[in-house]
Amino acid sequence: MKVTAAVGFAQENKGRFLEELKALLRIPSISTDPERAGDVRRAAEFVAAELKRIGMENVRLIETSTAKHPGGHPLVYADWLHAEGKPTVLCYGHYDVQPAEPLEEWKSPPFEPTERDGNLYARGAVDDKGQMWMHVKALESLMVAGDGKLPVNVRVIVEGEEEVGGEGIASFVRTHGEQLKADVALVSDTEMFAPELPTLCVGLRGMIYTEIEARGARTDLHSGMYGGAAPNPFVALAHVIAKLKDADGKILIPGFYDKVEKPTAAELKAWKALPFDEEHYRETEVGSVSLTGELGLSVLERTWARPTLDVHGMPGGFIGAGAKTVIPAKAVAKVSMRLVPDMTPAESFAKYKAYVESLTPKGIALDVRLIHSGDPIVVSTDNPYVKAATDAMHTVFGKETVFVRGGGSIPIVGDFVRELKIPTVMMGFGLPDDNLHAPNEKFHLANFHRGIESIVRFLSGVGA
Amino acid sequence: MKVTAAVGFAQENKGRFLEELKALLRIPSISTDPERAGDVRRAAEFVAAELKRIGMENVRLIETSTAKHPGGHPLVYADWLHAEGKPTVLCYGHYDVQPAEPLEEWKSPPFEPTERDGNLYARGAVDDKGQMWMHVKALESLMVAGDGKLPVNVRVIVEGEEEVGGEGIASFVRTHGEQLKADVALVSDTEMFAPELPTLCVGLRGMIYTEIEARGARTDLHSGMYGGAAPNPFVALAHVIAKLKDADGKILIPGFYDKVEKPTAAELKAWKALPFDEEHYRETEVGSVSLTGELGLSVLERTWARPTLDVHGMPGGFIGAGAKTVIPAKAVAKVSMRLVPDMTPAESFAKYKAYVESLTPKGIALDVRLIHSGDPIVVSTDNPYVKAATDAMHTVFGKETVFVRGGGSIPIVGDFVRELKIPTVMMGFGLPDDNLHAPNEKFHLANFHRGIESIVRFLSGVGA
Repeated sequence: MKVTAAVGFAQENKGRFLEELKALLRIPSISTDPERAGDVRRAAEFVAAELKRIGMENVRLIETSTAKHPGGHPLVYADWLHAEGKPTVLCYGHYDVQPAEPLEEWKSPPFEPTERDGNLYARGAVDDKGQMWMHVKALESLMVAGDGKLPVNVRVIVEGEEEVGGEGIASFVRTHGEQLKADVALVSDTEMFAPELPTLCVGLRGMIYTEIEARGARTDLHSGMYGGAAPNPFVALAHVIAKLKDADGKILIPGFYDKVEKPTAAELKAWKALPFDEEHYRETEVGSVSLTGELGLSVLERTWARPTLDVHGMPGGFIGAGAKTVIPAKAVAKVSMRLVPDMTPAESFAKYKAYVESLTPKGIALDVRLIHSGDPIVVSTDNPYVKAATDAMHTVFGKETVFVRGGGSIPIVGDFVRELKIPTVMMGFGLPDDNLHAPNEKFHLANFHRGIESIVRFLSGVGA
Repeated sequence: MKVTAAVGFAQENKGRFLEELKALLRIPSISTDPERAGDVRRAAEFVAAELKRIGMENVRLIETSTAKHPGGHPLVYADWLHAEGKPTVLCYGHYDVQPAEPLEEWKSPPFEPTERDGNLYARGAVDDKGQMWMHVKALESLMVAGDGKLPVNVRVIVEGEEEVGGEGIASFVRTHGEQLKADVALVSDTEMFAPELPTLCVGLRGMIYTEIEARGARTDLHSGMYGGAAPNPFVALAHVIAKLKDADGKILIPGFYDKVEKPTAAELKAWKALPFDEEHYRETEVGSVSLTGELGLSVLERTWARPTLDVHGMPGGFIGAGAKTVIPAKAVAKVSMRLVPDMTPAESFAKYKAYVESLTPKGIALDVRLIHSGDPIVVSTDNPYVKAATDAMHTVFGKETVFVRGGGSIPIVGDFVRELKIPTVMMGFGLPDDNLHAPNEKFHLANFHRGIESIVRFLSGVGA
C-alpha cells in the first residue's frame, strides 16, 4: 500500500518537516509592508525550490505586479499531471503573513519559531505557512512512496497577497483560468471547530459593503446660528440606520430575507450537537454584556446562515477631542451586509438602495453606493471529494467529520466557483485559540502532522 | 451741549479715526498662531497707548499666561472713574483676529486695509477691531468735549483671546471681578439685522455639549465571524439618536421643553415684522434642499428661542477610504443641545442623561458625559441702559431699534451676568454680509461712524 508507505515516510520525517517549516517561518514575509517586499519574494522562492526538489514540475514564479497593481507579490505555481484518467486537485495556500505588531505582547519573537507545550509559536505558523507546508509535505510523502508518481494529478498555486486582498491571484484566475484547470480545489486555511474534531467548512457568507452619504447644507454651519433650521446629516443617518435593523437584530429592508435558504434540518441538528457554549463564547470571545441578534436562533445559525447588517464607521464632521459646534455639510455611514445562499449581491443591494432612498430625511440628499461585494457560497457535501476528505480524516482522527460554515468570506473560494467552476474542499487544521492575526499565533504540532496524514489520505482517496 | 460737541468732534476727525483703525488692522494679531504672539502683543500695546493718550487712567496690560494657560495673550485695562453718583459702564471688545486663510480668496490682502464701495476690507475690520475702536473713539470725543471729563464712569477691558476661547478673560472675571465692578457692560461684537436697521441683541442661547460613548465587544471584531452575534456600537448609537429628535426636529427627551420660556407676543410680533425671507435664507445661507426644525414655528423662533439638538461627529471604527469589515469595540457620538431661558444646563443634562441611559440598547454599555456648558441669556429690555441705547440709535438712524436674539453664545456675556451680576447691552454695527471669519471681511464705513456717534450718545444718556 502506497498510502501506508507515504504515511510512514511522513512519520519518519516529522522532525525534518518541522525544521523546514521553521526556516520558512523565519522569513518575515509581511505582504502589507513595502520594506518587506524582498522577504516576501524570498518566501516565494523558498516554497518554489522545495516544490522543485520533491519532484513537482513546471515550477515557476508568476509575477502579479502591473501598472494597475504595483508592488504585487508573485504566485508560486507547480504541477504534476501524469496520473492519466485521474482527477486533478488544485492545492491552494498562501505564504504571506500579517504584521506582527504589537511586538511587546509576543512571549517569543514572532519570526523566531519557538516550541512550547506542543505548539509552534510564530507569525504565520497556522495562517497559512504551516497549513500550506502540510500540502507540500503530503505531496513529498506521496511522491517518495510512489517512486516519483502521485496518485492524482495536482496543481499547486500559492499566493503572497492573501493578507492584503489577494488582487494578484484573483486577476490571474480571471485571465488565466485555463492554467489552473482542475476538478476540485483543496484549501487549508480554516480551523477545526474544536480540538480533536475533524472539520470541513462547507459554507461562507457573501457580502455587500456600501456607503450612505448624507448631504445637508452647502457648507459646514455653526450649530448656534443654524441649529433648529439646518438639516443635520448625522441625525439623518441615525434615523436611516435605526430603520435598517431593529433592536432585535432583524433587518427591516423589505424582501431582504426572501431568498434566504434555511439550513437543512440535518444541518441544524448537527450544529446543535457541536460543542458550543453561548455563554462561554459571549464571555471569552465577544466580551460584551450580552449578545445580540435575531431572537430564537442560535449563535451558530445567526453567524453562519443568516444575513446581518453592520455599521463600520461614520466619517464626517468633528472627531477630535473636546467640542466643536459644527453642523457638517455631509456625513457618511459605512454599512455592510453579510449574505447567505441564495441571496445575490446585486438583488440585495438593489433592495437596500431603494429602501434607504425611500427613508431620505427632510432637507437631506442621500447617495447610496456599493463599494464591493462577494457571493455567498455553500458547498454540497454530497460529492466524492467531500467523501474522500471525511474518509481521510476519519482514519486519522477516529471521528466523524463535522460540517460547519464560516461567517466571513474567503474570496478565492468564490473565484474558484465562479471562474473555474469547481468545488472547494476547505479542510483546515487550525484551532479556535490559535491567535490568527494576533500576538502569539501558534500551530498545534499534533495537528500539523495529522494534517499532513489527512492530506496524504485525501489525495490518495481522490485518486483511488 | 457736550454731546453735540462730542459728535461734532467725531465728525471732524472721521479721517484720522479711520487712519488709526487702518494702522491697527495692519497688525496681524492672529491669536491662534503662536508665531504671531509678538503681533498680538503689539496690538494690545497699540490699544493701550491710545487709551492713555485720550486721557483714560490706570491703563495697563494684564498678563493672562499661566502654567495652566500657557501662551495666554494680555488683557488691556483702562478706567476713568470720576463721574461721582453716575453709573459705571464696562466697555468690552477684543483686539485679536481669526486667521485669514484661504488667502487666495481675498480681493485685497487681509492685513492691508483697503477701502472699496464705502467699505473697509481687512481681517478684523468688523470682528472686532473696528467695533472696539468705535468705543475708544467715542471715549476720545466725549473726553475732548468734556474738557477731560466723561459723563459716566467707564472701565475698558479688551481681550486678545476671543477667537481662541477667551480663557484668559474668563479666569480674570472669576478671580478679579471686583476690578471690573460696573453697572452695565457694553459689547459691540454683534450685527444689525439688516442695513439701516438699528439692532440690539437681547438674548443668546446656552448649550450643553456632550459625548455618548457606546461600548460593545471587548475588542474590535471581524464582522464576518461575529456579525449577527456581537453588538454594534454605531447601530446602537443610531437607535439612541433616532429617539432623541424626531423627523420633525422635536426633541423627545421627557420634560426637555418644560422650562422653555415662550417669547412674548410682542417679541413674536416684532420678529414677524423683520425683513426676513425664509426661502432666500434657505437658498443663500443654508443651501439645503429644504429647511428642518419644529413645525409651525418660524426660522427666527426656531434658531433664537427654541432648544435644538445636533450631532457633530461620530468618532470610532473605520473612516478611511474603501472597506474594512470591523465591528468596532466602541463608538462615540458628539451631541450638543442649545438651551433657551429658563432652561439650565444642569437640569437639561440630567434629563438627557437619564433618558439616553434608559434607551441603552442590548449588549451595549453607555457612558454619557458633559464636555462643557453655557447658560442661556435673555436681557430684559426694560431697563435704563436699553432705553439709553435705543434713544441713542434712534437719534442716529432715525428708526426704532429692533430687538433680536442670537442662536449661539457669547461666553463673556454669561460671565458678566454670573460673576459681575450686571446686564449687557449688545449694540453691534456689523452687517450680515460682513464675512466674519471668512475671506474679504469688511466693515461698512457708514456704520463705523454711526457706531461712534451711537456710543457717544449712549454713554451720555447713561450719565444724564
